[in-house]
Amino acid sequence: SGNCLSIVIVNGTKNSTSLRVRLPVLVFALEVLVVVLYSVFVTYDDQTNALLQNNKTQPLENTVYQDYPFFADIQVMIFIGFGCLLAFFRRYGFGGMVFNFLTATFAIQWAILVQGFFHFYYDGQIHLGVINLINAEFACAVVLISFGAVLGKTSPVQLLVMALLEVPVFGVTEWIVVEHLKINDAGGSILIHLFACYFGLGVTFILYRPSLNEGHSKEGTTYQSDLLSVLGTLFLWVFWPSFNCALTLRGDDQHRAILHTFIGLSASTLTAFALSALLSKNGKLSMADVQNVTLAGGVTVGASVDMMISPAVAYVLGMLGCTACMLGYKYLSPFLARRLRLQDQCGIHNLHGLTGLISTIAGICAILLASEETYGPSLYQTFSYRLEAGLGRTAKEQALYQVVALGSTISISAVGGVLTGLVLKLPYLASPTDEFCFDDELFFNVPLDEDQASESQEPRCSETQITNHQYILQSKPADDVITS
Amino acid sequence: SGNCLSIVIVNGTKNSTSLRVRLPVLVFALEVLVVVLYSVFVTYDDQTNALLQNNKTQPLENTVYQDYPFFADIQVMIFIGFGCLLAFFRRYGFGGMVFNFLTATFAIQWAILVQGFFHFYYDGQIHLGVINLINAEFACAVVLISFGAVLGKTSPVQLLVMALLEVPVFGVTEWIVVEHLKINDAGGSILIHLFACYFGLGVTFILYRPSLNEGHSKEGTTYQSDLLSVLGTLFLWVFWPSFNCALTLRGDDQHRAILHTFIGLSASTLTAFALSALLSKNGKLSMADVQNVTLAGGVTVGASVDMMISPAVAYVLGMLGCTACMLGYKYLSPFLARRLRLQDQCGIHNLHGLTGLISTIAGICAILLASEETYGPSLYQTFSYRLEAGLGRTAKEQALYQVVALGSTISISAVGGVLTGLVLKLPYLASPTDEFCFDDELFFNVPLDEDQASESQEPRCSETQITNHQYILQSKPADDVITS
Amino acid sequence: SGNCLSIVIVNGTKNSTSLRVRLPVLVFALEVLVVVLYSVFVTYDDQTNALLQNNKTQPLENTVYQDYPFFADIQVMIFIGFGCLLAFFRRYGFGGMVFNFLTATFAIQWAILVQGFFHFYYDGQIHLGVINLINAEFACAVVLISFGAVLGKTSPVQLLVMALLEVPVFGVTEWIVVEHLKINDAGGSILIHLFACYFGLGVTFILYRPSLNEGHSKEGTTYQSDLLSVLGTLFLWVFWPSFNCALTLRGDDQHRAILHTFIGLSASTLTAFALSALLSKNGKLSMADVQNVTLAGGVTVGASVDMMISPAVAYVLGMLGCTACMLGYKYLSPFLARRLRLQDQCGIHNLHGLTGLISTIAGICAILLASEETYGPSLYQTFSYRLEAGLGRTAKEQALYQVVALGSTISISAVGGVLTGLVLKLPYLASPTDEFCFDDELFFNVPLDEDQASESQEPRCSETQITNHQYILQSKPADDVITS
Repeated sequence: SGNCLSIVIVNGTKNSTSLRVRLPVLVFALEVLVVVLYSVFVTYDDQTNALLQNNKTQPLENTVYQDYPFFADIQVMIFIGFGCLLAFFRRYGFGGMVFNFLTATFAIQWAILVQGFFHFYYDGQIHLGVINLINAEFACAVVLISFGAVLGKTSPVQLLVMALLEVPVFGVTEWIVVEHLKINDAGGSILIHLFACYFGLGVTFILYRPSLNEGHSKEGTTYQSDLLSVLGTLFLWVFWPSFNCALTLRGDDQHRAILHTFIGLSASTLTAFALSALLSKNGKLSMADVQNVTLAGGVTVGASVDMMISPAVAYVLGMLGCTACMLGYKYLSPFLARRLRLQDQCGIHNLHGLTGLISTIAGICAILLASEETYGPSLYQTFSYRLEAGLGRTAKEQALYQVVALGSTISISAVGGVLTGLVLKLPYLASPTDEFCFDDELFFNVPLDEDQASESQEPRCSETQITNHQYILQSKPADDVITS
Repeated sequence: SGNCLSIVIVNGTKNSTSLRVRLPVLVFALEVLVVVLYSVFVTYDDQTNALLQNNKTQPLENTVYQDYPFFADIQVMIFIGFGCLLAFFRRYGFGGMVFNFLTATFAIQWAILVQGFFHFYYDGQIHLGVINLINAEFACAVVLISFGAVLGKTSPVQLLVMALLEVPVFGVTEWIVVEHLKINDAGGSILIHLFACYFGLGVTFILYRPSLNEGHSKEGTTYQSDLLSVLGTLFLWVFWPSFNCALTLRGDDQHRAILHTFIGLSASTLTAFALSALLSKNGKLSMADVQNVTLAGGVTVGASVDMMISPAVAYVLGMLGCTACMLGYKYLSPFLARRLRLQDQCGIHNLHGLTGLISTIAGICAILLASEETYGPSLYQTFSYRLEAGLGRTAKEQALYQVVALGSTISISAVGGVLTGLVLKLPYLASPTDEFCFDDELFFNVPLDEDQASESQEPRCSETQITNHQYILQSKPADDVITS
Repeated sequence: SGNCLSIVIVNGTKNSTSLRVRLPVLVFALEVLVVVLYSVFVTYDDQTNALLQNNKTQPLENTVYQDYPFFADIQVMIFIGFGCLLAFFRRYGFGGMVFNFLTATFAIQWAILVQGFFHFYYDGQIHLGVINLINAEFACAVVLISFGAVLGKTSPVQLLVMALLEVPVFGVTEWIVVEHLKINDAGGSILIHLFACYFGLGVTFILYRPSLNEGHSKEGTTYQSDLLSVLGTLFLWVFWPSFNCALTLRGDDQHRAILHTFIGLSASTLTAFALSALLSKNGKLSMADVQNVTLAGGVTVGASVDMMISPAVAYVLGMLGCTACMLGYKYLSPFLARRLRLQDQCGIHNLHGLTGLISTIAGICAILLASEETYGPSLYQTFSYRLEAGLGRTAKEQALYQVVALGSTISISAVGGVLTGLVLKLPYLASPTDEFCFDDELFFNVPLDEDQASESQEPRCSETQITNHQYILQSKPADDVITS
């Protein structure tokens, strides 16, 4: 692909897709912003500040040894798991893996500041340790999930702007839901998955491209891209227990979170294979199902992952989540795309939305059923709002708070997504034209493959394709010419 | 490949390879079985049960912090290491990586139950924590090693049935060898590698396909598949110390296990490169050697991995194991395939059988040489059966137990494998025909590669190939037609 | 590629590139050397020796639990991170990934001995634990970085010889710099990165090949090789904090090292994307920049990574290092290659040299600014040479020591590299001819790709290419013939 692009395809600077000026300008502006705010507001916390250590400090009791292993695992999920998973398009492997890298990097930097102001701010400063990085990784995961809805249809400039706007909206929601509503959501089914899903849907609703509903020649996969994407799935699958347990209470709560996540994923994986064969016309497995639907269980157990739900229930949740996710891919996604302008490129509504809803309901049930008989005194740790000396909420009251959290998360994220989408439609953001969606040629110097190199004398595309382009000459050709 | 398959190639439902009905039926049956047994029998252990924590419980002393890092490392080995390693065939990358995913997932679920009944059952319940998952991973590794013998020749339905049967046979063997014979085998050279090897050989003996001895057009590798497979090797290599030390005694025993595994692997890697060049006709390295033979040292140090064998001996064991493994690939495997009906697709008899035998012998030597002079009081921890207050065995007696364990493991596994092979030959299990061995087209919707897409008007295969197929029409064509 | 190589291309045994004799001879000689030295000199340390454990030993306080997680992370970096990163050439993926595997394995074995004599030798023995392996991994990283300068231009025989010579030179330098000059260099910016860089440049200076300055047909990348290489970058990126903190003081020092490394990498990643777009002619991103320049920040924070430099300064260091690295790739590397005979294949002078220099300067500044006000009593731990009861150095004196360390490291490594280069030019080391640089065909049995297989009747290369070869017949053809 790209053999026939040796033509000028711009219609003026405003809609140019050259990154030469706009990406550096945006990035340097963001970097200056970040470095100024870091230098003014960010300092070390009591685990990283040398001044606060004394003779009684036990170096091996530094919290870094509790937090860093989980941080590293989630890093693998974000940069390698997501990166490979998103590289499934035929000619958008660079975009999937590399824009994920760029967006994730900025999202974490930015979330350190935003979440810092909400959660780690005292004495006029944000106090920093690895625990902040774990929190920032969650905010980053939110951005990357939303990214899935618009994969291949957005420039890196747009993605950075999206991260810039999404992280604060997420920060506010987190502040409301965690600090004020005080909900149970250890695995982030509501706060992370549902937020990310509806934010992403909001963005893609605005960025609707009717022509893509007709199918796009580059939207398919190749043998290699499918393998790379499954590799990403496997990294996410293997380290998902670390994701779901990283911020739970230490000890048995964290232990249960690991067990339940493993069991949930395990159940959803088996189910995904069964349904993939059952729902295919020719009785064969589809790699897209293996790449996505197998992971549903990790989300579905999320809201109750640290509770005493029993291993069997974790298993059932995995099966249910997987079934909803699979049916969503099969029947709901095409409907949403055609009727509701919701072109959800990776199907995040199935993998994070439907599963998140089931998880929320399961979480409410688990809260209602929680009793001293099952938990003993631990009840008032896992469900600390029930302490009479504290908030003194009943289980039923808490169920209401969970519902309120659900409603507010979905509303804020959807509205935030729509508004962000409107910003992304502004000019100068290098938004790709329809025909260059899912095509690395647009933003990367793509190497000629060996076969292409040896066959370059035979153009592969017809004249009709070329006539789709807009032939508008421009003053700075070197900046905006796309050559193959 | 697959451009010329637009034909009906079934001979009745009995031998159909469509997964549409049989895979979901089997998976849902297994899932119902698992979920019923989990809900009746599986509960939390004292590290995961909230009710059993009290004021004196130190959350950070929960065993999850000792076990989870090793669990996660072995997860990487099983899902990513094995997955990539098995993806080496030219057109069977999906099968290698994805059937590994499916089989491993079910094997662990199932092993939690089977091993639970043998090792974690009291008060009428199986008690569950991450330690059970580590044990289940070992059972899973056994299944995956055996899978290597029949890679590309079995349907996912057959693989699930194999896991269903192999895990209980392994469970019984483990119960005999660990609980009753009480052998030293920290790295599982006898229990895991030899069991898996002879079980797999038993299966492949029954599933013998004479036509494959003539070579198969799809049995080769590609540049990309070789790279992916080496990547799998590297993941196995890097995390193998975690595998060999996960169930040793904590402290210096575990420390030695890590050292010895690293040194053994290191020695076998160097040796593999030397022998690969030496034994090739043109003085070039073979990727198959790099993918497999480099790992031999990890198995060879297994049975004595926690003992005071000295670093130099670990090194020599790595060299010996590698040499046996390499000679096995070169001379023994072709002989076994042609004369003994043992078509061992990945050469597990070399990598796990021969090395396991050497490891067993080395383990016996190390047991015989162990003395208070070398170990001090620790002698009665690493070799607890020598405690007079306990079993009071002498080293020589123990050597006999090791030999008995070796014999019983090999016999049980070989018989179990043969019987399992007979079950796998039953109809309705979607066994692939000879010509569709090693071919993802059979069980996957394989994307057309770009080149194929643009050249689809020129069929690549000759008429003679087509005439090999069986032209039998069938009532439910949509279910059983293979289209390219 | 390789379809037209069915010809004899040797000019006598002396310059033959067959590995059949020379690789096994060298490897077995090295293995005998290693195993003899291990058996005479290497024993267990007090954490791995069973004899030294007693009733008071707390197994869970064994240092293996502090060291092994970092060891494993760095293993991933060395074998998987470097391995994938170096696989970027179009037809040298096997060489990049597999020679990295071979060289790293030997370098670690060898470094255990060399560093053992300098740092872990007492009572006439080298005492071994996982801590030695971490140290050996650093020596190994040095060799692999230097390898980057000569990637694709050296045989595995030459690479082993290089490791054999480089590790002792590094060991001496480490001994001078760490044990005698006692410098601050937690992340190894001086000792690891600068040493490796100038050693590698010394080697490549001697191995200069004028014809490669004209460009080489196989020097490019493919879509797949670029993706694999980025995957390697991501593994290095994710685990770099473990590399920079593995040998710092436990507690807050290690915590800061993790934070700073993450922030530095994060800043250099954003900057790399901006500069890649800014400096490209067509406003597109280059994968080579994503693969290399993003990592610059990890090196730049190295020398001061455990100090109280503040998060903002870590950010600025990442930006600075990245900028220097990028400008180096753009302007300095071509100059060095054409004018100074420094063909630096992977641009290690940019990623490890320039960044290492900046890091050294930053480290000196941080040393000069360190005060009790900022550090409290910890000052005399992080900067232990300032203890009056010890060396009693002032900050300014220490700055001088840092400069001396910088100078001696660069001089020793450059001279060592040049001498090593001279050794590598000796005959019988299977050095590739110019036209077979960057070509796996030379040292590997490369599988025919599917397309090639089906098109093998149409040769792809012209007669003019063939006439470049030397047609000299030889007595042992089977050993030295290269057939496609």
